[in-house]
Amino acid sequence: MADFDDIGISAAVNLLSALAFLIAFAIFRLQPINDRVYFPKWYLKGLRVSPTRPKRSVTKFVNLDFRMYLRFLKWIPEALRMPEPELIEHAGLDSVAYIRIYLLGLKIFIPIMALAFAVLLPVNWTGKMLDTSHGLTFGTIDKLSISNVPPGSNRFWAHVLVAYACTFWTCYMLYKEYQIVTTLRLEFIASADRRPDQFTVLVRNVPPDADESVSEHVEHFFCVNHADHYLLHQVVYNANKLASLVDKKKSLGNWLVYYQNKYERKPSRKPTIKTGLWGLWGNRVDAIDYYTKEIDKLSEQEAAEREKVISDPEAILPAAFVSFKSRWGAAVCAQTQQSSNPTLWLTEWAPEPSDVYWNNLAIPYVELNIRRLLMAVALFFLIFFFMVPITFVQSVANIDGIEKVFPFLKELVEKDSVKSFIQGYLPGIILKIFLILIPMVIMLMSKIEGFTSFSSLERRSAAKYHLFILVNVFLGSIIAGTAFQNLDKFLKQSATDIPRTIGVSIPMKATFFITYVMVDGWAGVAAEVLRIVPLVLFHIKNSVLVKTEQDRDEAMDPGFLDFPTYEPRIQLYFLLGLVYCVVTPILLPFIIVFFAFAYLVFRHQIINVYDRKYESAAAFWPGVHRRIIIGLVISHLLLVGLLSTKDVKTCTPFLVALPVLTIWFHFVCKGRFESAFTRFPLEEAMKKDTLERATDPTLNIRTYLRDAYLHPVFKGGEVYVRPPMDEEEGLPLVSTKRSQRSSKVTSRATSEASV
Amino acid sequence: MADFDDIGISAAVNLLSALAFLIAFAIFRLQPINDRVYFPKWYLKGLRVSPTRPKRSVTKFVNLDFRMYLRFLKWIPEALRMPEPELIEHAGLDSVAYIRIYLLGLKIFIPIMALAFAVLLPVNWTGKMLDTSHGLTFGTIDKLSISNVPPGSNRFWAHVLVAYACTFWTCYMLYKEYQIVTTLRLEFIASADRRPDQFTVLVRNVPPDADESVSEHVEHFFCVNHADHYLLHQVVYNANKLASLVDKKKSLGNWLVYYQNKYERKPSRKPTIKTGLWGLWGNRVDAIDYYTKEIDKLSEQEAAEREKVISDPEAILPAAFVSFKSRWGAAVCAQTQQSSNPTLWLTEWAPEPSDVYWNNLAIPYVELNIRRLLMAVALFFLIFFFMVPITFVQSVANIDGIEKVFPFLKELVEKDSVKSFIQGYLPGIILKIFLILIPMVIMLMSKIEGFTSFSSLERRSAAKYHLFILVNVFLGSIIAGTAFQNLDKFLKQSATDIPRTIGVSIPMKATFFITYVMVDGWAGVAAEVLRIVPLVLFHIKNSVLVKTEQDRDEAMDPGFLDFPTYEPRIQLYFLLGLVYCVVTPILLPFIIVFFAFAYLVFRHQIINVYDRKYESAAAFWPGVHRRIIIGLVISHLLLVGLLSTKDVKTCTPFLVALPVLTIWFHFVCKGRFESAFTRFPLEEAMKKDTLERATDPTLNIRTYLRDAYLHPVFKGGEVYVRPPMDEEEGLPLVSTKRSQRSSKVTSRATSEASV
Repeated sequence: MADFDDIGISAAVNLLSALAFLIAFAIFRLQPINDRVYFPKWYLKGLRVSPTRPKRSVTKFVNLDFRMYLRFLKWIPEALRMPEPELIEHAGLDSVAYIRIYLLGLKIFIPIMALAFAVLLPVNWTGKMLDTSHGLTFGTIDKLSISNVPPGSNRFWAHVLVAYACTFWTCYMLYKEYQIVTTLRLEFIASADRRPDQFTVLVRNVPPDADESVSEHVEHFFCVNHADHYLLHQVVYNANKLASLVDKKKSLGNWLVYYQNKYERKPSRKPTIKTGLWGLWGNRVDAIDYYTKEIDKLSEQEAAEREKVISDPEAILPAAFVSFKSRWGAAVCAQTQQSSNPTLWLTEWAPEPSDVYWNNLAIPYVELNIRRLLMAVALFFLIFFFMVPITFVQSVANIDGIEKVFPFLKELVEKDSVKSFIQGYLPGIILKIFLILIPMVIMLMSKIEGFTSFSSLERRSAAKYHLFILVNVFLGSIIAGTAFQNLDKFLKQSATDIPRTIGVSIPMKATFFITYVMVDGWAGVAAEVLRIVPLVLFHIKNSVLVKTEQDRDEAMDPGFLDFPTYEPRIQLYFLLGLVYCVVTPILLPFIIVFFAFAYLVFRHQIINVYDRKYESAAAFWPGVHRRIIIGLVISHLLLVGLLSTKDVKTCTPFLVALPVLTIWFHFVCKGRFESAFTRFPLEEAMKKDTLERATDPTLNIRTYLRDAYLHPVFKGGEVYVRPPMDEEEGLPLVSTKRSQRSSKVTSRATSEASV
Repeated sequence: MADFDDIGISAAVNLLSALAFLIAFAIFRLQPINDRVYFPKWYLKGLRVSPTRPKRSVTKFVNLDFRMYLRFLKWIPEALRMPEPELIEHAGLDSVAYIRIYLLGLKIFIPIMALAFAVLLPVNWTGKMLDTSHGLTFGTIDKLSISNVPPGSNRFWAHVLVAYACTFWTCYMLYKEYQIVTTLRLEFIASADRRPDQFTVLVRNVPPDADESVSEHVEHFFCVNHADHYLLHQVVYNANKLASLVDKKKSLGNWLVYYQNKYERKPSRKPTIKTGLWGLWGNRVDAIDYYTKEIDKLSEQEAAEREKVISDPEAILPAAFVSFKSRWGAAVCAQTQQSSNPTLWLTEWAPEPSDVYWNNLAIPYVELNIRRLLMAVALFFLIFFFMVPITFVQSVANIDGIEKVFPFLKELVEKDSVKSFIQGYLPGIILKIFLILIPMVIMLMSKIEGFTSFSSLERRSAAKYHLFILVNVFLGSIIAGTAFQNLDKFLKQSATDIPRTIGVSIPMKATFFITYVMVDGWAGVAAEVLRIVPLVLFHIKNSVLVKTEQDRDEAMDPGFLDFPTYEPRIQLYFLLGLVYCVVTPILLPFIIVFFAFAYLVFRHQIINVYDRKYESAAAFWPGVHRRIIIGLVISHLLLVGLLSTKDVKTCTPFLVALPVLTIWFHFVCKGRFESAFTRFPLEEAMKKDTLERATDPTLNIRTYLRDAYLHPVFKGGEVYVRPPMDEEEGLPLVSTKRSQRSSKVTSRATSEASV
């Protein structure tokens, strides 16, 4: 069995790669040429510009100030220095709440580790079960785990008590954190500037009307039922075709720029291309002429399509963004049922304009139901049939398996160092490779399900991906490793035996998961900070596409906090920590190191790198909370399963109360906090309305809201640019000019209440 | 094994008793003396008065018109004659929706029976499995059941197809019925007269305020946050002590009347009582004097308490009934969140004044959570530890058990008729006895859980009782009967084997359940129509308490439709029908007879007998729907379990899709219809408001609402009397005078908005 030696090698490999990443990062980030890769956020905010041209041209690319290299770890205190309120203002509450998840991990597991090390390690170590048994050799880790306690021993009471202590501590911290995040959210919303979504409600499933257009129908309905509050509405166009034309034009424009640059550098030879498939065959023509013509053609098509969308009543979807005169009016409309048929006139808070996922606005109610059923079935198959390859690959990728399949490798793998490497490193990497594609598939499934905002898509994807990780990474690794030899027997086992089987396997899998934490956690996070892919892409774009500063701004890819991929992975660490804190506490330090390191790195990233796609004010927190609770309940069930094989029947009833209390705790928290994340209290709305009336009595809210919810293709053919957070910065808004231009187009479409 | 002979005897016994009940009913109901027992509803509505005194005094008590006896079945067409809209007006939508459950049973099971008889009976009968096996004797019922099909036979495809057909038919009927009930509800609400609860919202968990009283705090909060709509509010007094004084006084009053009547009949002897415990010892005093004095004393106490409650700020609970100027304003307030702390200022629709459960209005949020946890645990113990006595008694009460415990009875029980009787009749009676006490316990538990209206208490109790019946009657009967001999083995079985075990036992239990349907269903319903207990009680009261017509009105006990007890029992019949329609279709006719008979009887009862405690406009229907869906899913799981023992692996995957589709169907229905039962659409509210402004422009809504939500003890010391449905009847409302009287008392407490 794996032991400290294997772990040692694995830890060394991972630490070395993590360290290599970090050193590379420390060096790269100091080079001016990489400035836009490692500090894109400051460029986006306009607080940093390309370094002024120095005397010697080499320092434009390479930093030759060696004193700076001496302080290459300076980014760490820098990342920690910015206080939280400033960070919220700088990066938004979503990002801050996200890094608080890591902090929550530290808050939960550091005290738990102290307790477990103080109580359980001595209890396990002196258990002496494994010294005497069956002639097998056991590693040090096993001797520190619950496996070393003989069946029927009273020592198990220590584990039960620690399980209680851990559960209470975890719940306490969860409650505190939920409270803090709720407060932050409410403060954030209360202090937020005027935003269109505060006044606007998304109305879907507008029923067809024989006599009226959608726009008239919406207007009449809200004039009648919200007479005192309705202001105006914006119909939704089916502009998907138009958007794809715009995208295509943009891509052709990139190629045009590429060939123009090429020509400028080598004016001797005009660049040519073949017009056939992928440029592989067809007539050879002048590239610049070709793309210019193509773009002109597309521009015409685009203009025609634009005209068609606006004039064709068929292109208007049965949905609308309805704006109200006050936040109170919008809050009322978003929270109430409008029609006696609850599938018509569905109202919900409008997402931020940049958060709207336009493609899904038109799905009718019945179709939504069918889509959800199909996606639930698809998710089931994705989760349960994905196990087959993982199980297969992992079972092959052990020493015995490799020797059996590739006998010629036998001598190589029998070497001690190679053996340790394979045992320690390979299973984690295999898992990792399989996991890279899944988030995209899951996001696609969420889109098919029909959610109307990016933030809700991401929340749903995170929930799906969490299930996936739970079954395939956590359960899959535990069951497949031990049960592969007797798969046949396993299929015939009844479903309730599975918790017991898993529980029994838990202690044996500690080594594997320690390795996993190091590969996925430590090295993965270190790779995150290095940003290899954006680094390479930026330099490619920079060399072939960029001519002006604005081009360089566009070539810059700040990236986003990939919540639906990252968050479920953090949940796996929570789950591992909660499961192993009683069984094999030696795993906890590895997890704590992960949380601390990841906290550091992501704090740095949200300060310097990531852009925001949208701001949902930590709307994902209820999901985070729920998933930690799920982890807690799983840890209880597995502990019950494990102890049921240890001949300690007296302990089990005490443990059964734990999941019940935990689930109850979940409902208490849900009742206490969740509505702060889904509803907007009238008291707050009224406060902000009153305040605004007092401070800005001349505000013309109608002008402010008129074009807020226009499809982005009508805003000058580009994706809507989020205005910067604080308006005091006084930057000229990129979108202002555009929206003026487009307001002519849309003045026909925007109806106004005659009240 | 039991057979048609046993069933025959059982059916005969039950039919005879049912018939006896019916004949008794047919005779009793014609006697003028019983008129108030069998037609109390008409008395309550003032449409029937005590028969005018005829010439011969005997006809005052006995009906001597023998022609009427010839038409003793006339009540059946009479019960069916009243059309549904009139019935809704006469008895309310709750009652009508309730009898629609029976109708739904008929609609579901008659076509299913036709299909199952046409397809499955021939398939089973020609299966010939049981003819050849093991030398055991099998009854005709078993030969008509799925047990007669040999394992591995392709005939099971017929069962799978019928299961699909039944499921789709059931879902289709459920959908139609949900649609009908929703429409009825919306029409009922739309056509309803002005009622206080349409304008009123119950606000709970008003936060304490150092500077203001509860009343001021409520007023200020709603004046600010619902400035345009707030009208007035009514604080809630903690009047539980006062209410108990009032009750005590009323009971003493009854005794006083009793002794006064006794004295009038025998003026020779003044009645005396002993003042000690239960009248068993103590000084012997004059009864009339004693009770008069006691009542005087209590009246003083009551007056003092009344003054104290009204003047003491401590007696005001942190809850209030807040009324709005329009239904729209109330609908908005009821559906939105008021404060950023979702545990404060909780708003919900106010129940009807007669529906308020006053005792629970003051429970704070945290305590509610703890109460619910405790009651969930208590329910678990009630359900799972109640099985012990049932299992024990039933296992004793079979032929072998009786012979073992009472050897001297051996000769008696070996007689064929006695044996059949015991086998057919006894288990059902035993079950029945055990089940009588449970609903009261469950209602108590619901009250502890803290619901604020009788209707929600009853809905919650029904849900709990349904679980109880599911586990103890349905599962308990199936498992205990077959598994008692090998209980030891059973305890060690894993939880997933249980569906299979149950599935296997299902066909063997058909006889038992046929008996159960006859005892509980047929005879039970017949006993319902006879109203033995109210009959006896009325005559006792009539002879000792009644002097005036008004006394007689009070002695009359119309009873209520006991929804939380009856509805879960109907669900058992749905479950039995759905489970057995594939396994033993011969059970279906018994269930159909039950549904038809019960429909008839309850339609008669709601027309002639039952009073309404409250009117919730069929708010219970989502629960009814959900529980039928639960039954459907259980039937699928058991069929899968049963077929898994029949060596037909190819069928099983087809069956697994059924529960998934059914659950999906449930969510579709939930999304489509449920909100009509929980929310009040703004469109409807606005319509009614507009209509009312047009038809009744001079209405003073403030006067109308002022005393609507006063605690009943302030309304003249009696429980609030529900005003009759249609105000056109022009009856003087009993409560009018009282509320005038009490308005003086409460004018201090009712605050009015200064807006």
